[in-house]
Amino acid sequence: MGGDFGPPALVAGSVMALREYPRIEKLFLVGDSPKIEAELKKHACNDGRVEIVHSTQVVEMSDKPVESVRRKKDSSISRAVDLVKHGSADAVVSAGHTGAAVASTTIKLRTLPGVERPGIASVIPTESNLFVLIDAGANIDAKPMHLLQYGIMGSVYSRHVLGFENPCVGLMSIGEEDVKGSEFTREVFKMLKESQLNFRGNIEGHDLFAHPVEVVVCDGFVGNVILKTCESVGDAVFKWLKHELMKTKVRMAGAYLAQGAFRTIKKKVNYETYGGSPLLGVNGICIIAHGASTPLAIKNALRVAAESIEHEVNPHIVEEIRRYNETTAPLEPAIP
Amino acid sequence: MGGDFGPPALVAGSVMALREYPRIEKLFLVGDSPKIEAELKKHACNDGRVEIVHSTQVVEMSDKPVESVRRKKDSSISRAVDLVKHGSADAVVSAGHTGAAVASTTIKLRTLPGVERPGIASVIPTESNLFVLIDAGANIDAKPMHLLQYGIMGSVYSRHVLGFENPCVGLMSIGEEDVKGSEFTREVFKMLKESQLNFRGNIEGHDLFAHPVEVVVCDGFVGNVILKTCESVGDAVFKWLKHELMKTKVRMAGAYLAQGAFRTIKKKVNYETYGGSPLLGVNGICIIAHGASTPLAIKNALRVAAESIEHEVNPHIVEEIRRYNETTAPLEPAIP
Repeated sequence: MGGDFGPPALVAGSVMALREYPRIEKLFLVGDSPKIEAELKKHACNDGRVEIVHSTQVVEMSDKPVESVRRKKDSSISRAVDLVKHGSADAVVSAGHTGAAVASTTIKLRTLPGVERPGIASVIPTESNLFVLIDAGANIDAKPMHLLQYGIMGSVYSRHVLGFENPCVGLMSIGEEDVKGSEFTREVFKMLKESQLNFRGNIEGHDLFAHPVEVVVCDGFVGNVILKTCESVGDAVFKWLKHELMKTKVRMAGAYLAQGAFRTIKKKVNYETYGGSPLLGVNGICIIAHGASTPLAIKNALRVAAESIEHEVNPHIVEEIRRYNETTAPLEPAIP
Repeated sequence: MGGDFGPPALVAGSVMALREYPRIEKLFLVGDSPKIEAELKKHACNDGRVEIVHSTQVVEMSDKPVESVRRKKDSSISRAVDLVKHGSADAVVSAGHTGAAVASTTIKLRTLPGVERPGIASVIPTESNLFVLIDAGANIDAKPMHLLQYGIMGSVYSRHVLGFENPCVGLMSIGEEDVKGSEFTREVFKMLKESQLNFRGNIEGHDLFAHPVEVVVCDGFVGNVILKTCESVGDAVFKWLKHELMKTKVRMAGAYLAQGAFRTIKKKVNYETYGGSPLLGVNGICIIAHGASTPLAIKNALRVAAESIEHEVNPHIVEEIRRYNETTAPLEPAIP
């Protein structure tokens, strides 16, 4: 029921995914069943893998995350997470209230063994790379240990899903030198440096695209601001360019000849291609789709969910967190 | 002595400013005098308004801000701030270590009456607007009251220097609804709402360019990340576009015809045009120039310094802060 375009976009994207991914065994559509049925009818979809799960409530954007879990027990997100909890589904995809998706998965599924707090891993394209920004907005009041674990979980995702063998981790800070940053980031810096991660050190906003690392670690507030600022600047530049190109006939002719260049970039930076961001660290798969998700974005969010299962992201996270805890755990006191 | 390009760029920019702004009465160049003299000679500059002030030390990027003020008493930034402190100069411009410029002005000049902490006000262009981002990196561990005052100081700058009659203030947060954000931003939200500022509410990263306000309020960590991320994305898009446009002869022909569009935008987003960001709230004028300042950027940083004096930014800030404190001060207890 979530997302700016509601059931029409969500159902259309689901139908696309069913056609394209034969490996999907079952697809639950959770929400107001008459609405969902009407949408399925529009697409003439009678795929036997679809099962509608009726729910009567919707989490509104003004609802508080934790309260929404407690009070709206029959919300679509809550019911969808229940399907994962009870083993009927492997993953949940939501384009609705991010906070509610984070709260309901964290409360109902709990975190993976050893993981303190889940974090949203957004994949961001550069000209020559793909980097993971973690946390993109799940955990607003983070502790240093959470960011260390984001470094571990982001590296797992970069390695096993995106295919970077030895992903390089950067800590988002202000100033590159080791001594720079806030009290909080300096603490995280020490922990990352002592870990076995491939840690490059502090990075700044201008490094994101000029000297990209594969994993950018930050708290959820900063990560959310970065994610939305990147989107905003990119959109603004292309819109502005379009206006300028329309101003004279000569420029319009030029734009026509050069259109291939614009298309290549627009395609590569299109968030619809990336579909959704996994919430890493919960005991189950949860994909946070963009609020403004189109059917194409929803289809790809379902693909991202499938990839997380296929590449065994969660077992790898559990293993890496365990390994970290073992190597840094305090020594047992000697038996006297 | 600061900045990535050191005395050559700083002196060249100063010479440009002297030629262009006859109203500059005196220009102190503070640093290693043989180096400065050699640069002045290159430009055949024997302007009587120039006075070289020799200093023997330089703050390095790895120095800690407050320590640099205490230990390097003969650094160029320290000596330059002394000139303002003793009334010889009205303003100081630095392209060096931002933290050192903030610390030395705050320690030596103190803040304006009523101002708790200074903040860097960066001016950022959009297609149709100019907005002030405050704080862009002076105050890493900010309190809610500091951000309220940034709203006031940013509004003063927008009104009196940039010419927006009733500047609209947005609080950088995650989620637009009043209840969204961190504990910290929710506290600031309440204070801004109760103030007499033209407060629009929470804004998110994607609003920066899509629905721009005139003043964006945030803490120095977040502001610095935003500023550098905007720069990074903008640069990356243009660089990428250039590569794509060079890939075929047809695209190259198109780019040639459309070049006017690219030039218009590049000129408007060029940080060199904005030159420097005022550190608002110190008792004196301090302009933080970009580390990578070219001569053009330095010339414009000197212009920004002059504008702050001419438009009486500091007296207006004192007045507005006083007015805020009067209207929100607790009532005197009634005399029994």
